[in-house]
Amino acid sequence: MTIAQAVIHGDRLALARLLSQVENNVPDGRAALIELFPHTGKAHLLGVTGAPGTGKSSLVNQLVLHYRKTDERRVAIVAVDPSSPFTGGAVLGDRVRMRDLSGDPGVFIRSMATRGSLGGLAQATANIAQVFDAAGFDTVIIETVGAGQSEVDVARLAHTTLVVEAPGLGDEIQAIKAGILEIADILVVNKADRPGVENTEKALKSMLELAHPTQRVFRHHGVSMDVSVVEENPHEDIWIPPILRTVSIDGHGIAELAESIARHVAHLRLSGDWAVRERARLEVELEMLIRDELVGQFREKVPQKNYEDVLEKVVRRDLSPWEAVKSLMNGRLK
Amino acid sequence: MTIAQAVIHGDRLALARLLSQVENNVPDGRAALIELFPHTGKAHLLGVTGAPGTGKSSLVNQLVLHYRKTDERRVAIVAVDPSSPFTGGAVLGDRVRMRDLSGDPGVFIRSMATRGSLGGLAQATANIAQVFDAAGFDTVIIETVGAGQSEVDVARLAHTTLVVEAPGLGDEIQAIKAGILEIADILVVNKADRPGVENTEKALKSMLELAHPTQRVFRHHGVSMDVSVVEENPHEDIWIPPILRTVSIDGHGIAELAESIARHVAHLRLSGDWAVRERARLEVELEMLIRDELVGQFREKVPQKNYEDVLEKVVRRDLSPWEAVKSLMNGRLK
Repeated sequence: MTIAQAVIHGDRLALARLLSQVENNVPDGRAALIELFPHTGKAHLLGVTGAPGTGKSSLVNQLVLHYRKTDERRVAIVAVDPSSPFTGGAVLGDRVRMRDLSGDPGVFIRSMATRGSLGGLAQATANIAQVFDAAGFDTVIIETVGAGQSEVDVARLAHTTLVVEAPGLGDEIQAIKAGILEIADILVVNKADRPGVENTEKALKSMLELAHPTQRVFRHHGVSMDVSVVEENPHEDIWIPPILRTVSIDGHGIAELAESIARHVAHLRLSGDWAVRERARLEVELEMLIRDELVGQFREKVPQKNYEDVLEKVVRRDLSPWEAVKSLMNGRLK
Repeated sequence: MTIAQAVIHGDRLALARLLSQVENNVPDGRAALIELFPHTGKAHLLGVTGAPGTGKSSLVNQLVLHYRKTDERRVAIVAVDPSSPFTGGAVLGDRVRMRDLSGDPGVFIRSMATRGSLGGLAQATANIAQVFDAAGFDTVIIETVGAGQSEVDVARLAHTTLVVEAPGLGDEIQAIKAGILEIADILVVNKADRPGVENTEKALKSMLELAHPTQRVFRHHGVSMDVSVVEENPHEDIWIPPILRTVSIDGHGIAELAESIARHVAHLRLSGDWAVRERARLEVELEMLIRDELVGQFREKVPQKNYEDVLEKVVRRDLSPWEAVKSLMNGRLK
């Protein structure tokens, strides 16, 4: 039995081993991914993002506990932590989680730290999600820390994206700056028992009103639409991101959040957006792989010596970077 | 006279026009960049990054006012604002600045909003900095909002990078998570008149102690070194990032900051790190251009129809993304 077959048959040890192979991008991992690919496309991919300090991880834990209590679905968590290697953030996060969710065979948690390039992280996360999908997990939660471009890229992998805020973090500004509101399907104001919750909610609402007509509707349907039209004609094709309050410590609002996620999945299926997002996601993946392959082939064909010589000329300002590229490309074609 | 020549001769109108051409990546802009490239390599590139709310922009304004008062150097500011297109953050930031710095012919400010991909933004910022360099600005300040990977990438363009923090923003955590401490040459605790400044400073100090031996020293010299050794043997080759306090509203600490930046420039020159950073920067730029060129050539060679067919097979799970790439590459080679 191949490792891919073992994973499909529910072998947790094989799953853990394969996840490492995939994260480290070793040839065995890639072979297994090819074998697993026909078994993917069933899981619901749920992205959860937001600034540090919003209580994102405990919110995810509560949501998973809720799922396990109410409908027995199998849930995998991919925690993407772009912390620097020496802080060990990912490991710490894992330990806290383990307290709540360990010992449940229907839950699997995988932490990833940023390694190498940005494209690399998004690609590795996509691959990890595919493994969980093929292994039969019904929901794969992709949790990212922060609000930078890398988190946005990772969140784009998901069918449904939650953006988590909390009162009093200067988060209104953060959300605006990072443009993460544009990717939010559901907005969660966590720690809603804290003062300032109304302000946070109000700021999110006005941002949404601004963002909604030009951004979201346009993106999904290729036509721009006035917000007044949207509000007067509610239609299954239009999803207006709801704003929910939660308190992850006591579980307040978690059931409503789960319900809202289920409604979004239903909307995706009815409107055809599920297929649109699947296609967009696979296209991005294909483009990343093409780029990596092209660069790899180029590196093989151009001798290191040529490359160094040309770089030296650029450093000395004898050759502009554009002329250097032209010269390297011509060398390659000979 | 070409637009590049006009820029070299100090024509501000030509400069503004060229910056737009370069930001929009039009062919005229590229031709001018090639013409300008031999005139680059003189300016000091100063990166300034940090979370929203740290008062980064007013700090930059104060620093520029200080430079203009004390040594008459010409300063350009590239403000990179990864806000979403509809918030208009970049435009707003520009207006605030204009109040302080407008009318000074020795200062030029350019705001950029994120357009398209991440690589695109870093590349465009590098190009804008090159134009200012060739136009004879002595210092080019690259100011980025936030603490995500995109900001780190942009900051890597700089010779000297300031990381700005402020008390009471939960910023200790942010710095750790985003790993921006690793790129800091100088740490600034701005808004130092606020309560909590000692805590912020303490958190930064302990992070630095953790980061310093394994990260910074290793990165610059290819050897790992114990922090005790570093402290007992101060040497011009070793730069320990200082932590400075500033209050940008009243200008407190700005002169000390300017002095610290000057010391870092001297260190870069003495240790040979200036050349090392120049080379690394140009290599990254060369690699980005090679990648773009390869992808462009690929798109020209593969008919859109083939690409769509293969993508369709991937969507239907008939073909894995890796097999799809192989198939497209083989088609291209025929």
